[in-house]
Amino acid sequence: MRTSTRPALARNFSGGPGALPRRVLEQAQEAVLELPNTGVSILGLSHRSERFRAILDEAEERVRRLAHLPKTHHVLFLQGGGTLQFSMIPLTMLPPKRSADYLVTGYWSKKSVEAARYHGQVRVAWNGEPDGFRCLPGQDAPLGASDAAYLHYVSNETVDGLQFPAVPSSPAPIVCDASSDFLSRPCDMSRVSLLYAHAQKNLGPAGVTIVLVDEQVLAHRPSGLPPILDYRAHADARSLLHTPAVFSCYVVLLSLRWLEDDMGGLVNMGRINHEKAAMVREALRLAAPFYTSSVEPACASDMNVVFRCPTPALDARFVEHADSAGLVGTKGHRSRGGLRISLYNGVTLEDARAMAQFLLEFAHQHRDQVIPAPPRCISPQGGDARSEHVALPMS
Amino acid sequence: MRTSTRPALARNFSGGPGALPRRVLEQAQEAVLELPNTGVSILGLSHRSERFRAILDEAEERVRRLAHLPKTHHVLFLQGGGTLQFSMIPLTMLPPKRSADYLVTGYWSKKSVEAARYHGQVRVAWNGEPDGFRCLPGQDAPLGASDAAYLHYVSNETVDGLQFPAVPSSPAPIVCDASSDFLSRPCDMSRVSLLYAHAQKNLGPAGVTIVLVDEQVLAHRPSGLPPILDYRAHADARSLLHTPAVFSCYVVLLSLRWLEDDMGGLVNMGRINHEKAAMVREALRLAAPFYTSSVEPACASDMNVVFRCPTPALDARFVEHADSAGLVGTKGHRSRGGLRISLYNGVTLEDARAMAQFLLEFAHQHRDQVIPAPPRCISPQGGDARSEHVALPMS
Repeated sequence: MRTSTRPALARNFSGGPGALPRRVLEQAQEAVLELPNTGVSILGLSHRSERFRAILDEAEERVRRLAHLPKTHHVLFLQGGGTLQFSMIPLTMLPPKRSADYLVTGYWSKKSVEAARYHGQVRVAWNGEPDGFRCLPGQDAPLGASDAAYLHYVSNETVDGLQFPAVPSSPAPIVCDASSDFLSRPCDMSRVSLLYAHAQKNLGPAGVTIVLVDEQVLAHRPSGLPPILDYRAHADARSLLHTPAVFSCYVVLLSLRWLEDDMGGLVNMGRINHEKAAMVREALRLAAPFYTSSVEPACASDMNVVFRCPTPALDARFVEHADSAGLVGTKGHRSRGGLRISLYNGVTLEDARAMAQFLLEFAHQHRDQVIPAPPRCISPQGGDARSEHVALPMS
Repeated sequence: MRTSTRPALARNFSGGPGALPRRVLEQAQEAVLELPNTGVSILGLSHRSERFRAILDEAEERVRRLAHLPKTHHVLFLQGGGTLQFSMIPLTMLPPKRSADYLVTGYWSKKSVEAARYHGQVRVAWNGEPDGFRCLPGQDAPLGASDAAYLHYVSNETVDGLQFPAVPSSPAPIVCDASSDFLSRPCDMSRVSLLYAHAQKNLGPAGVTIVLVDEQVLAHRPSGLPPILDYRAHADARSLLHTPAVFSCYVVLLSLRWLEDDMGGLVNMGRINHEKAAMVREALRLAAPFYTSSVEPACASDMNVVFRCPTPALDARFVEHADSAGLVGTKGHRSRGGLRISLYNGVTLEDARAMAQFLLEFAHQHRDQVIPAPPRCISPQGGDARSEHVALPMS
């Protein structure tokens, strides 16, 4: 037990790999020297051992329970991250003479389109780029065409701070990249043919990607795929076609146990995650117009809150001051600049509260340094951002 | 520091994932809660952080020094294990109208041929299967044809217990699967166009695969490869095309530091590894004819010693008694049965000595239960195995 040596850790708001619960880290740490009752390190545990089979089996059962997964879906633990899925999906689901529909809602869905085009014909069914990735397609009507091989969407755009409120409807089979919000809230898996999520946001360390795939997808896949790129081969081998990232899988199991047994499942986790994001957004609103965000409130993500200070120099100072205050990982994605606060499952309510407080304090300390200028973008409330100095409520 | 809570661990002879040095495990354990001087867990460290860039850079530098790597070679840290390399290699190096030559020397090289056939034309340049994978091709003459796109071989056959003494010669570019002996001894990389090795034998946990690839290979690759399957894209992104297995990469760095700074490099590591294998083989020889092995001594691996007791029932009892004695992971590969003692870098001389002692004791205790029968295979010395009872030297 490590109780005597618990260091004061920073609060981690990294966009990913992200924070994991303290309890999970402590159990993972223990297993690095000895997986309980085995005498061996989890790093030296054979993937063919009964003990590892039991780890994968329990992880699968917990995913099934947490996600209310239909029995028709397989649960796979694969290597290669979301990026390999960008290829495996069209290789499996996109026949030569058909097209797949993609919703381009941000950095990652754009990447997924670029990758899919190496393998087949892709149509962009909706594109938020001309509008600066500020919003998502309306979900009152079905998305994509009925002749599409599938409709691909990214449920949470990590870089852009946009999140679908629910699985959209489509006449085509739905494929979902849920890499940054899987198991952060309930999700209706009965409407999704294939969902994939790498672990390093809400579930564990980088190195393992969870794929939930309907048997119908496997039944209609083309022949001739090499086993490593064939979901069927992975399903038949029950994720042991080759050596998986054993440690990463174990930490995913620890996270699933924490999520189900300690946190009470996805309804409660979703409520907590929403509360965390609401606290941070409320601080941004209270400090207006110091902080600005282009994200439309109805599309704002509970996982990644994306915003800016009045100048890039103040963004940089924000990161520096936050680091000094033990609030790390706030720099925006390298493609976008600005700031990003990620609030994955492992970030606590206390962490979010500390961040909200810091947001208010930083704006209060720096608002006098701002030279009034025309607004760059829309405020978090959707109104015009003004460069007036306003009083900030401070504790 | 964990000195107060060091558990008595088992000695781990698993075929892989395998044993890692105690010092590496302790440093890895520390970093799971906090990577020194960062305030964050290595599991929550952004792969885009300066700190992680420094981890990859140092790992690359150490691989370059340890392997005396020519400057023309790139060092890549990829996901997908050896199995994804089975596909990436022919996708990169095997043009439509040419053939690649493969040496089939055991379980894994046979797998690599099966996978390569999904991508192009493969010739088996040498096949040890009809002879039961007991030996390797003679290395006095070049192997493979001059018109081959490349010659692929597996430097150490983990399942079969065979190891090439050195890089063979070939008129074709040489591709080496060194998954189970990379950095266990010196290797002449100036003669290898592409070498790949997953970490989980000698270097770290499963989840990362090291690829050393000559710039010439990248220069001649076909166009149209999706980035995830394109070595050039990984090289240009300096192994950050997508999120690598951050923790696994860090443990590889810890192992490289241990190998270079504590063990003094590959010449010394190779000497120690040979001494460990010699101790185990000497015990098998002393206990003859109780233990038998089909491996020809000149081809015997220093990494995996493969043998059998007189009956499968005794093999099973061996595993059980060894487990009870804290010597774990001795079961042979599921495809072969029998027994296997793996002696990767992380296995100490003391571990090997304890195993040698156990081998003698087990044979001594069980030799009376053996019903004399015709020999099944050749003894470790290459002579006939006889079922006579011989006195065993016991401590």
